[in-house]
Amino acid sequence: MKAIQLLGDALIILDQTKLPLEISSRTVRTYEEVASAIRQMEVRGAPLIGAAAAYGYVLGALAYQGELAEFDSYMQQIQETLVQTRPTAINLFWALRRMEDCLRENMRLEDIAAIQTRLMAEADKIAAEDVQANYAIGEHGNEVIPKNANILTYCNTGNLATVEYGTALGVIRKAFSSGKTIHIFACETRPFLQGARLTAWELMEDQIPVTLIADNMAGFLMQKNKIDLVIVGADRIAANGDVANKIGTYSLAVLAQAHNVPFYVAAPTATIDLKLTGGQEIPIEERSAKEILEVFGVPVASPEVPVYNPAFDVTPAKYISGIITEKGIVTAPYAVNLLKVMVRS
Amino acid sequence: MKAIQLLGDALIILDQTKLPLEISSRTVRTYEEVASAIRQMEVRGAPLIGAAAAYGYVLGALAYQGELAEFDSYMQQIQETLVQTRPTAINLFWALRRMEDCLRENMRLEDIAAIQTRLMAEADKIAAEDVQANYAIGEHGNEVIPKNANILTYCNTGNLATVEYGTALGVIRKAFSSGKTIHIFACETRPFLQGARLTAWELMEDQIPVTLIADNMAGFLMQKNKIDLVIVGADRIAANGDVANKIGTYSLAVLAQAHNVPFYVAAPTATIDLKLTGGQEIPIEERSAKEILEVFGVPVASPEVPVYNPAFDVTPAKYISGIITEKGIVTAPYAVNLLKVMVRS
Repeated sequence: MKAIQLLGDALIILDQTKLPLEISSRTVRTYEEVASAIRQMEVRGAPLIGAAAAYGYVLGALAYQGELAEFDSYMQQIQETLVQTRPTAINLFWALRRMEDCLRENMRLEDIAAIQTRLMAEADKIAAEDVQANYAIGEHGNEVIPKNANILTYCNTGNLATVEYGTALGVIRKAFSSGKTIHIFACETRPFLQGARLTAWELMEDQIPVTLIADNMAGFLMQKNKIDLVIVGADRIAANGDVANKIGTYSLAVLAQAHNVPFYVAAPTATIDLKLTGGQEIPIEERSAKEILEVFGVPVASPEVPVYNPAFDVTPAKYISGIITEKGIVTAPYAVNLLKVMVRS
Repeated sequence: MKAIQLLGDALIILDQTKLPLEISSRTVRTYEEVASAIRQMEVRGAPLIGAAAAYGYVLGALAYQGELAEFDSYMQQIQETLVQTRPTAINLFWALRRMEDCLRENMRLEDIAAIQTRLMAEADKIAAEDVQANYAIGEHGNEVIPKNANILTYCNTGNLATVEYGTALGVIRKAFSSGKTIHIFACETRPFLQGARLTAWELMEDQIPVTLIADNMAGFLMQKNKIDLVIVGADRIAANGDVANKIGTYSLAVLAQAHNVPFYVAAPTATIDLKLTGGQEIPIEERSAKEILEVFGVPVASPEVPVYNPAFDVTPAKYISGIITEKGIVTAPYAVNLLKVMVRS
């Protein structure tokens, strides 16, 4: 099951707000619809947001009816709309920057149809590279997974968060398919319940043993020596190795360190933002109070209760045992080693 | 609003599974109904469970139609039913032991009506003592609350968890009413959402400033220096100061220590179980998978997903800045000081 798929001039989107109770795809034909799907988290997961935005950019380009002279400024406005959907995951900006570069390089063709073809090829390349990266992340990450392991994971980092296979769940998939005896504890991941709704479902589909827990049970499991390793994804990684990821990741990292449990991050190098010196510079999205006050539209608190709903937090590099990328596993000192991996071909 | 209230031969119970969306009381007349209400968590909170069980014992006694000779064995079976409702909170066993002692002392009256009167008086005394204890806990606890403070609390420890006023929320109420500028961060407390449903509601009713967060946001707030103090309740305290409380408490304690945030427990001495040398001896209740798989009956994951749902965890004494009881604040070394407070009149 693919989370997004381009078919001609339409993007098929699996609506992740309804999973797993309703498996509902919809066809979108405009960049505005793609922007809205990203904003509403029908499409979510840092790598997937990048690919979806690239395809949104393509849909915008394909819809263009005007003159060549205004194409560039028209595409700028599309890019602006897509850029503003979500602030934390760098993959969004990274993918749109690639699309913009592709546009600039190909404006010399002076033929809109030809430029559209190049843009579509570039979006497909971004998607294909993500798939390749995830399989490579799986290979590298498998090296740190013991032959028998209870693994804690967080949020959703699988097929549904990427173009295919997954980052942290890619590592888990690879460990399982290579014959290791693993058991996954999936945190439900409030408030959006990506762990309960998406990760547990993906693992069940793949017949990988999984137990669902509430987020607040992770520390108790570590205290009881029931967790051998934690592996999570990332939305943005600063030059010093600080990692922004789904809210709650930082708490897990502190708990892991307190219990001497290795804590790994799995992410493609597209998630690394060398422009930011440290995690404190990563913008943290705050989302609607409704996400906490309601579950599938059912109120779970008085609607007037004030809510704080940051969607991400930042885990300082010192808590991280390694960052598993498609180019290998990066360890401390991160400032040096992230730079090295970024220049490695 | 009282969580339970004896009226003649009936107990009025506020159904806490429906709050705050539905304020629904029901009248129960049998000890079996009281047992069921405790099991289903319509009545919950360690001190309240104790008082409710005592009243359940009274309802059982009032319904007795038999001979004096069999009264004792009849009451034993009632006690057994009530004892088996929930395993972790010691207040349940403590209150039923008091009722049993009262029965034994008064059997010599050789008059069932007279014994019933004594049992009702004892249950009322248990309830009244809980109210007194909570106000005293509030007074003592207020000493550790700064004049301006952001306070994190967990689960529900208020009017709805006690006969009146609350333990940790009693301290918060006292700090607020004494003019301190406090702001409460209430963790929603998955899976039963006591924080979202009950604590946020109680604090709003009292106009105490509150912000609701998901449990996984507590670490992030501490990292940002937004929490000055954590205060929670307790379900059972071992002789060495280890504290069993709602699942997730241990994670908060580890996070608090990592951020040098004081971590207080507020509980009446009825919660202290000197028979247990350490927290590892406290039985931890596991509850139904449904509590995690459904929210107000709405599925939030595939119904087949395996679930682990421990209802409590144990926080080792070394994480605890102080245990606030009605007889004063107990600090380390707990093994010595808990014993001292228990013998103090």
